[in-house]
Amino acid sequence: MNKETLIAVKERIQPYIHRTPVLTSQLLDDLSGAKLFFKCENFQKMGAFKMRGAANAILSLSDEERQKGVVTHSSGNFAQAVSLAAQKLGVKAYIVMPKNAPQVKKDGVKTYEGEIIECESTPQAREATAEKIQNEKGASFLHPSNQDEVIYGNSTVAMELLEDHPDLDVVLAPIGGGGLIAGTALAVHNFATNCKVIGGEPMEVDDAYRSMISGKIETNKTFNTVADGLRTHLGDRNFPIIQKYVDKIIRVEEDEIIQAMQLIWERMKIIIEPSCAVPFAALLKNKEEFKNKKVGIILSGGNVDVKNLPF
Amino acid sequence: MNKETLIAVKERIQPYIHRTPVLTSQLLDDLSGAKLFFKCENFQKMGAFKMRGAANAILSLSDEERQKGVVTHSSGNFAQAVSLAAQKLGVKAYIVMPKNAPQVKKDGVKTYEGEIIECESTPQAREATAEKIQNEKGASFLHPSNQDEVIYGNSTVAMELLEDHPDLDVVLAPIGGGGLIAGTALAVHNFATNCKVIGGEPMEVDDAYRSMISGKIETNKTFNTVADGLRTHLGDRNFPIIQKYVDKIIRVEEDEIIQAMQLIWERMKIIIEPSCAVPFAALLKNKEEFKNKKVGIILSGGNVDVKNLPF
Repeated sequence: MNKETLIAVKERIQPYIHRTPVLTSQLLDDLSGAKLFFKCENFQKMGAFKMRGAANAILSLSDEERQKGVVTHSSGNFAQAVSLAAQKLGVKAYIVMPKNAPQVKKDGVKTYEGEIIECESTPQAREATAEKIQNEKGASFLHPSNQDEVIYGNSTVAMELLEDHPDLDVVLAPIGGGGLIAGTALAVHNFATNCKVIGGEPMEVDDAYRSMISGKIETNKTFNTVADGLRTHLGDRNFPIIQKYVDKIIRVEEDEIIQAMQLIWERMKIIIEPSCAVPFAALLKNKEEFKNKKVGIILSGGNVDVKNLPF
Repeated sequence: MNKETLIAVKERIQPYIHRTPVLTSQLLDDLSGAKLFFKCENFQKMGAFKMRGAANAILSLSDEERQKGVVTHSSGNFAQAVSLAAQKLGVKAYIVMPKNAPQVKKDGVKTYEGEIIECESTPQAREATAEKIQNEKGASFLHPSNQDEVIYGNSTVAMELLEDHPDLDVVLAPIGGGGLIAGTALAVHNFATNCKVIGGEPMEVDDAYRSMISGKIETNKTFNTVADGLRTHLGDRNFPIIQKYVDKIIRVEEDEIIQAMQLIWERMKIIIEPSCAVPFAALLKNKEEFKNKKVGIILSGGNVDVKNLPF
């Protein structure tokens, strides 16, 4: 993977995504002691950065592959991203979802004409069902975070951010399945100088933090975090990138996540998911480390149930 | 009042305010059948358009007047706007507030170093207390909506909107005390051609709608609306402007306001006050009238208690 590959990816997906704005806030700068640049993927199409990886993954398929469709198992933003990207490209999308997935998630997929295939609510059932569709339909499987083309698509978030603000000292991103932070790290490695990459992770699901220490992919036993987008594990495609190019992972407590989320809502007047608040919470927890630094913060998405907020 | 006056106002307040962005949304365009341009005063300093009128009113005072300070009675956004504008201009601000005003509103004023003077929670007590401060301190009284310099400051919202999008067919604004819609109407009259001005008003406090019919300033007997910024009455300075230059007022029900607010939160991922949702609710209620039109919608502010939402 080199610069040219990433530049080609960025050009390729450009017609299918928004170039999202980078917002600043004097109030939050004063509060944090750093100069903050928020990359607003909550304003991305379908409300999250996932659109970028999904679009790139589908665009990288051959015509023949596209005719047979794509399949993923996800009950979150990636399901909507694949549905929308597939719809825009005239490709059939099969979305494997647990029977008990919230209606609002199912409706999101239906809006973009994704075909929902219901299964039992276990990882085994999901994988088996997706595999069945691959075999029966010849559909290409898309993974939300552990696939090269998805990771490269994600890189375009930080590429745009660095185009707008080339002299950042640090870029912060949340860590869930590892796809966003890996893409971010590749972008920073290729397009910035003297810029660190730091991940934010909930203490309750600190598998990535522990993986960095042990040198192998660790898992979580429980998933008690409000940051519902970060409950997944690293994979064999993104972990080596994270090991190589991510400088550090900062863990935060649940109340710190909720407080950071509320601050962004109240001060910036924008809606972000709890997962997005994790990197900002990490910065607030370590103010000294970031003091007077130029810090890019990736706000990964804004799909949240406004009738069921954590504050 | 002519073009040159408004242009001078715009230049004068420019160092003290944000030029706020105009956002669009394909989803809401599709939903409404119109082409919508949202002028985001929820991103304004202190979170509302009120900063513009407050800044202009203080800037129009003489040096001698500024030394004696300013006074207003408000428990809403104007109190914060006067405090912040006064702070920036090195002027003392006295804010008369009812004893039982929410702590969050008091804290907002204190953040900007406004001095709170508490009084009983009646209009009479507020006016008497403000008058006492005028007499004792020689402070200049600033009215939230019924003062020429405040109205002219408000005009700059639509002036900016029309600079960005000169060919709008309609501009929609909410009607409360009448200061924003009057300022908007002056701007559209002076800087647009073939562009209508339409107000949105809650059915529960439809004093402006009734005033337009009767030709005199009507009042409300009850104030049962979620749009807390729109519970005030028109005044003798803004009503003649509204009569002359506002084409129409559309009234909306409470559930329509809440639904419109939720749509903007969920689809645009931005935080707006209930009052802001009123013009969009008016448009959704009258889709045929706005079909295929280019419609500017003023989102007046974003100061809302995120722990106490109407949905």
